[in-house]
Amino acid sequence: MKKFSFLDDYSEGCHPSILEALVETNMSQQTAYGQDEYSDHARALIQKQLGDASSEIFFVSGGTLANLIIIASLLRSHEAVISVRTGHIASRETGAIEAVGHKIITVDTADGKLTPDDIETVLAENAHAPHMAKPRLVYISNATETGRIYLKSELETLSETCRKHDLLFLLDGARLGAALTSAVNDVSLADIARLTDVFWIGGTKVGALIGEAIVINRPELAVDFAFHIKQRGALLAKGRLLGIQFEELFGKNLFFTASRHANDLAEKLSKTIVDAGYALASETQTNQIFPIFPNTLIEKLEDDFRFYVWEPHDTEHSVLRLVTSWATPESQVDRFIVSL
Amino acid sequence: MKKFSFLDDYSEGCHPSILEALVETNMSQQTAYGQDEYSDHARALIQKQLGDASSEIFFVSGGTLANLIIIASLLRSHEAVISVRTGHIASRETGAIEAVGHKIITVDTADGKLTPDDIETVLAENAHAPHMAKPRLVYISNATETGRIYLKSELETLSETCRKHDLLFLLDGARLGAALTSAVNDVSLADIARLTDVFWIGGTKVGALIGEAIVINRPELAVDFAFHIKQRGALLAKGRLLGIQFEELFGKNLFFTASRHANDLAEKLSKTIVDAGYALASETQTNQIFPIFPNTLIEKLEDDFRFYVWEPHDTEHSVLRLVTSWATPESQVDRFIVSL
Amino acid sequence: MKKFSFLDDYSEGCHPSILEALVETNMSQQTAYGQDEYSDHARALIQKQLGDASSEIFFVSGGTLANLIIIASLLRSHEAVISVRTGHIASRETGAIEAVGHKIITVDTADGKLTPDDIETVLAENAHAPHMAKPRLVYISNATETGRIYLKSELETLSETCRKHDLLFLLDGARLGAALTSAVNDVSLADIARLTDVFWIGGTKVGALIGEAIVINRPELAVDFAFHIKQRGALLAKGRLLGIQFEELFGKNLFFTASRHANDLAEKLSKTIVDAGYALASETQTNQIFPIFPNTLIEKLEDDFRFYVWEPHDTEHSVLRLVTSWATPESQVDRFIVSL
Amino acid sequence: MKKFSFLDDYSEGCHPSILEALVETNMSQQTAYGQDEYSDHARALIQKQLGDASSEIFFVSGGTLANLIIIASLLRSHEAVISVRTGHIASRETGAIEAVGHKIITVDTADGKLTPDDIETVLAENAHAPHMAKPRLVYISNATETGRIYLKSELETLSETCRKHDLLFLLDGARLGAALTSAVNDVSLADIARLTDVFWIGGTKVGALIGEAIVINRPELAVDFAFHIKQRGALLAKGRLLGIQFEELFGKNLFFTASRHANDLAEKLSKTIVDAGYALASETQTNQIFPIFPNTLIEKLEDDFRFYVWEPHDTEHSVLRLVTSWATPESQVDRFIVSL
Repeated sequence: MKKFSFLDDYSEGCHPSILEALVETNMSQQTAYGQDEYSDHARALIQKQLGDASSEIFFVSGGTLANLIIIASLLRSHEAVISVRTGHIASRETGAIEAVGHKIITVDTADGKLTPDDIETVLAENAHAPHMAKPRLVYISNATETGRIYLKSELETLSETCRKHDLLFLLDGARLGAALTSAVNDVSLADIARLTDVFWIGGTKVGALIGEAIVINRPELAVDFAFHIKQRGALLAKGRLLGIQFEELFGKNLFFTASRHANDLAEKLSKTIVDAGYALASETQTNQIFPIFPNTLIEKLEDDFRFYVWEPHDTEHSVLRLVTSWATPESQVDRFIVSL
Repeated sequence: MKKFSFLDDYSEGCHPSILEALVETNMSQQTAYGQDEYSDHARALIQKQLGDASSEIFFVSGGTLANLIIIASLLRSHEAVISVRTGHIASRETGAIEAVGHKIITVDTADGKLTPDDIETVLAENAHAPHMAKPRLVYISNATETGRIYLKSELETLSETCRKHDLLFLLDGARLGAALTSAVNDVSLADIARLTDVFWIGGTKVGALIGEAIVINRPELAVDFAFHIKQRGALLAKGRLLGIQFEELFGKNLFFTASRHANDLAEKLSKTIVDAGYALASETQTNQIFPIFPNTLIEKLEDDFRFYVWEPHDTEHSVLRLVTSWATPESQVDRFIVSL
Repeated sequence: MKKFSFLDDYSEGCHPSILEALVETNMSQQTAYGQDEYSDHARALIQKQLGDASSEIFFVSGGTLANLIIIASLLRSHEAVISVRTGHIASRETGAIEAVGHKIITVDTADGKLTPDDIETVLAENAHAPHMAKPRLVYISNATETGRIYLKSELETLSETCRKHDLLFLLDGARLGAALTSAVNDVSLADIARLTDVFWIGGTKVGALIGEAIVINRPELAVDFAFHIKQRGALLAKGRLLGIQFEELFGKNLFFTASRHANDLAEKLSKTIVDAGYALASETQTNQIFPIFPNTLIEKLEDDFRFYVWEPHDTEHSVLRLVTSWATPESQVDRFIVSL
Repeated sequence: MKKFSFLDDYSEGCHPSILEALVETNMSQQTAYGQDEYSDHARALIQKQLGDASSEIFFVSGGTLANLIIIASLLRSHEAVISVRTGHIASRETGAIEAVGHKIITVDTADGKLTPDDIETVLAENAHAPHMAKPRLVYISNATETGRIYLKSELETLSETCRKHDLLFLLDGARLGAALTSAVNDVSLADIARLTDVFWIGGTKVGALIGEAIVINRPELAVDFAFHIKQRGALLAKGRLLGIQFEELFGKNLFFTASRHANDLAEKLSKTIVDAGYALASETQTNQIFPIFPNTLIEKLEDDFRFYVWEPHDTEHSVLRLVTSWATPESQVDRFIVSL
């Protein structure tokens, strides 16, 4: 029997209802480059979630593309980004932001979450104009790289701090589905549209084949944005591929139900692990679980499952990362539980 | 009845057998980032077509990404590209190559095809070191933007010229399927692997949802190439999406049969147009047809069909561009013919 | 006896009165990075020449730096520059503008001068958004690379065309001294400040060791400009070096008298050449002369003088480029004349 | 009486003997762009100091230009730089390195000096290819930003670490004169040429108006370097200005004597401060002194002197930075001492 993978939330293809939509629409002739009917409809569906916001919406195939296009479009070359050191753009995108010309000023944090104080400190330490790059955009991820989420009050104070200092506020939503369906979440898409200047909604991790939806909440920031999508190679000839998927994600609430499925299984797994007497390296808020297991147990688990050994804990224990997804069958979670 | 579109070869989704493969493989768990079994198999299938060449193969989602990643990876910042003025990178990629730092030195041509003499002229005119960017890479497309193809002898002399002057030779194959199945073609994939340093095989225009296969024919040029794919945002989490499609294209000869279908219909359409007494602005070699029609006829055709009015010919005639594809039903061609 | 060089206008050090100013001010302690008293005074002196314009003035060491900093500061990455093909940024700056990310759309011209029609044509040919870089800045040189100047009426219609199409208008003044003191000139620095968005005044070619003064005529375009100067490596610790030189150039009219000296000698040389029966490849308007000489005469002249053989004219004649400067002694012109 | 400035080592013009050389050579006609006789001679004079090394030498006007040109020339876009967080490229160059496309991976240090362990840690933490930029070049400054120097044994182990991991080793010598003439120094220019791949020798801080000499110790790294100098705007038309100054600095040992003068006065000042009962925030090794003074004393000193108040020490004391230079008269040091 093949090992079941808890490695990540992108090991399978796409959610069956997305696949069905691809099949059904396949031979319809559509205008290229994102001007198709499905993309138009998908934009309208997302728009509905944003409340009053007069946002503009663009689809691209992946998260690094989203981040580099947004930042390259918004900033002048002397302007820098503020991010936690573990931020995806700072640690997992091969210098993509620097490759389009911008410095990232990083902040060390305990839990991967940025605070208003962090921003104030960066501003104070980078004020020696014109000898230092000028901080101009604040980048956060929700959920963070390690599965933590921002509460509404936290986003509000970050947003206020940004506005006070004329900083743009960008939220990377590669894991936004997981965040918004977390048991501890109190934030809506409309809140995020109100509090950020730009954010993006990850499709890949909630069941799309590819696809992220960039939402620009201030019309003046969207001017000529399409040029940047094309210039960085992200304008798909068959833009329908992105439109159809987001139509499916937001037409029938799939974005939320698929995310919640992953979170629910993570919660079940997490609780059972704790009940079995194991500690967690980090509280489970979304679909990532970081249990501390004896190395002997890990070896045994590796016979049946795939997962990351995140880091050593002590000589006899290690921290694992287990990821559940829209595609994880509850039976595999149960099978894992039995192995403990 | 909806108008049938001859606008381009990417108005539909994907070839039915590709769609079927996506359905069949959907729930299989695979390693991310292009390390999946399908991508491995697809690389092996393409490799088989290349003869002895020890090429390395990488998949990306689109043509502009392919071009900008290849060029950014291969060149130092003072090195320039030679291209015809109508080359896709020069005229239709929003300055993507310049945005990664490189000058394109353009050559005016009658038919969109580059010659060894063009290269020699560029070298002579750009020799004032270090005041001029140094020509270092020759870029051509096969088929060209206007559907013309290169014969083997032409590719051989271009290749010789490049090697003589230590120039890298890159072939953009967005329309390579159309070229290789042209009635006048005498070139194979193995020839192209032998004659170029890097080329890429377009999947999007022959029936993939997205996807181009970059083929690097000199191992030293492939060193660290994966970093560039990631840095420019082209490393798909679900790389399987590209692998599955190219597996399908090259596992059952679909790449060639789908391309030939388009070319065959173009030839039929083209011949009928000529037989009906109309001239062509350019000989039909692939799946693009450029008939010169009276404006009155064009207006009538627009009731039932979509196509580009390419350019005015005289006060009463215009040049159209008609594109056939893997998805064009012969019945629509026949319907068009009847309307003449 | 050493050959006298008519190769260019930067073969000597600096004008004696500049040297004197460097000597006199040498041990005065000054604030660094362009905040010294000399730079302040130089800015005020230039400002006086500009009439009502509320321009901001910055000094950098050379012309390529001026061009690349201005363009990188003003444009977003999808925006392109319009220039004649012989423009310095297009033909003699090693891809500096592309290296900061911008496409240059070039126009072929007979005499190196751009016209409103050229601009209109570029706009028409580059309107396919977002697939083409967006023309956003018009670049001209006055005098041009081949010593031609723009009349006031020409600058006015170019300026109108730019404003009509929301294009920024940049004038490269590496040879501005030569232009403004040309016998056919009808333009003042105040005119240029009124008609352009940004221009720069070349110091190097009129007797400075190094130095160009960038003049930004719209305050909103000058915001954060100093960051770009620093980021591109152009912020001299001893900014005084630039300030002292421009103080000298504009404190005592030296900018104009030194330029006029060069032009006067060029006119003398030019007239004598014509009187001696030789043709010119291009009318002499500034300090560059392009006589057509028999190759036998050229060989003889090369015994005593240095100059560029610009291009072959026919099998027995070539075009020379002779350049006079602030440093050219009339005696050398006379010696050249005698050799004809 | 005007306040005397201990703010930096670039408040005056140039060393009198450099000025004299500029005067003497002023009207000699020379080939442009660094091909003049003075530059040739200066390169030969520096070469002599380097022992057996077959280095190539290039002059540019400033330190940021030197750093950005070297790094842009040496690295591919996915390659990153390792630097201490206080390194000039990381903290004082307005994102210049990122603006040419490269990530700087920073290391926190107590004293601004990089160690082999720091390098090993960075390599271990940035090994997740291709998701992380690839560390490829190690950047250090000698002396550092805070006036500390590297001993020969330290440079040797850094060099070994670099070679072991195929990392390029770049030494920023903006303050190299101060380092090499420090009382604790045991390193020669020949040692540095042997141990680094590229380094540069600062002229500006030891008495040049402008100018740094880039020394490339491996010929293959110097290939086409001149293109990069031109492309980044650093190729001076009157390259003689740099050549003459370095000829003077290395023709008569001025580089060392001028640096030693600054260090000697710093030592005198430092010792007197310590003898007077004040502590230093950092040991004085070169021409920068960091005394901890009562705020009341600082206020008094500010009547007669200019200097940076570096940082608060406690509520009643602050750290000053005092810089001596080639131009500091001993009498001003004595006057300062008297004020304590």
